[in-house]
Amino acid sequence: MLHLYTAKGTCGRATLIALEEAGADFDLTIVRFAEEQQKTEAFLAMNPHGRVPVLVTDQGVLTESPALLAYVAELYPDAGLMPTDPFGRAQVNSIMAYLCATVHPAHAHIRRGSRWADDPAAIAELTRKGPEVVEATIRTIEDKLTGDWLVGDRMTIADIYLFTVANWMEGDGIDIDTLPRIRDHRARIAARPATQRALAKEMPQ
Amino acid sequence: MLHLYTAKGTCGRATLIALEEAGADFDLTIVRFAEEQQKTEAFLAMNPHGRVPVLVTDQGVLTESPALLAYVAELYPDAGLMPTDPFGRAQVNSIMAYLCATVHPAHAHIRRGSRWADDPAAIAELTRKGPEVVEATIRTIEDKLTGDWLVGDRMTIADIYLFTVANWMEGDGIDIDTLPRIRDHRARIAARPATQRALAKEMPQ
Repeated sequence: MLHLYTAKGTCGRATLIALEEAGADFDLTIVRFAEEQQKTEAFLAMNPHGRVPVLVTDQGVLTESPALLAYVAELYPDAGLMPTDPFGRAQVNSIMAYLCATVHPAHAHIRRGSRWADDPAAIAELTRKGPEVVEATIRTIEDKLTGDWLVGDRMTIADIYLFTVANWMEGDGIDIDTLPRIRDHRARIAARPATQRALAKEMPQ
Repeated sequence: MLHLYTAKGTCGRATLIALEEAGADFDLTIVRFAEEQQKTEAFLAMNPHGRVPVLVTDQGVLTESPALLAYVAELYPDAGLMPTDPFGRAQVNSIMAYLCATVHPAHAHIRRGSRWADDPAAIAELTRKGPEVVEATIRTIEDKLTGDWLVGDRMTIADIYLFTVANWMEGDGIDIDTLPRIRDHRARIAARPATQRALAKEMPQ
């Protein structure tokens, strides 16, 4: 039995949607960041980084969104969330790595600059420049998105991950209409029943 | 036929070592950053990000180290660079995602702070705090490294990736003796014939 720990609006949303798309049977805990539940001893014992998502499996604990997404896709191959050919899988992995290593850190600089600087003026500078960096980094995804989906002709875990990141754009001060392909892609995923179930479960309990 | 583009000392070294471990037949171009070869029109046509590694395949271009490493492991299964069970693969993917999304960006703040700040004082603050952040982020890998290898009882692409990142520690101002497991792990990988072939090929041509 899988048990997902995520928090509202975080990148953990992607794994929650993937589990819903897969029709998986899983337990869910919404970690309340406002109450700093990610800093409790019990949570840190699972994930010393104090971050979500965390997926507890019968074999142990897993962290990091690209790993969780690929694991869910592999456990539920009938959901077709990962291409069946090596090159297609590599394209999906490439986009997921870019989102987690480039776009997500760019976003984190806006509100979590204290990860990389102590000086308040430097933290303020990271916040100021953040939207420009997020916009530049996600634009390369906009440029790639020439069809309905990022890779091939059906939705993959890369699309689900992009959906989650794309939901941060307004909060990051970016006009989503300047990214029209990502805006329409986001609407396509938002309309899916699995996404709607996931978002309903993410609401405060 | 595969064609790898990498640059000396970058994270592209991991894919070069993996190709050598796999016994792959491939072409190699060492991109000279000192001459800004990554900013030429020809290079940017392959990778608009102007970064390495880039792997050109018969089906198209791939970027991002975790994707390239998983692709090489999948093309050459006999090399045993990826676990054969889904949970083991997820553990490998988790470590690779952490290295690319958390440790590598921490490292980049030391010399490439202009990605996230324009103000020279803020860039200097990122450089100053960088070593502390790199040390803190890589220490969680040190804590995980209780055996010879990161996952299971044989070397995987996660180990090769860690080797590449671990080679940055001295340059980042970190005493490798404070990370004894990573120090010894690095020596194990450095001693392998495939690593030695890769490092020889990486030298200026």
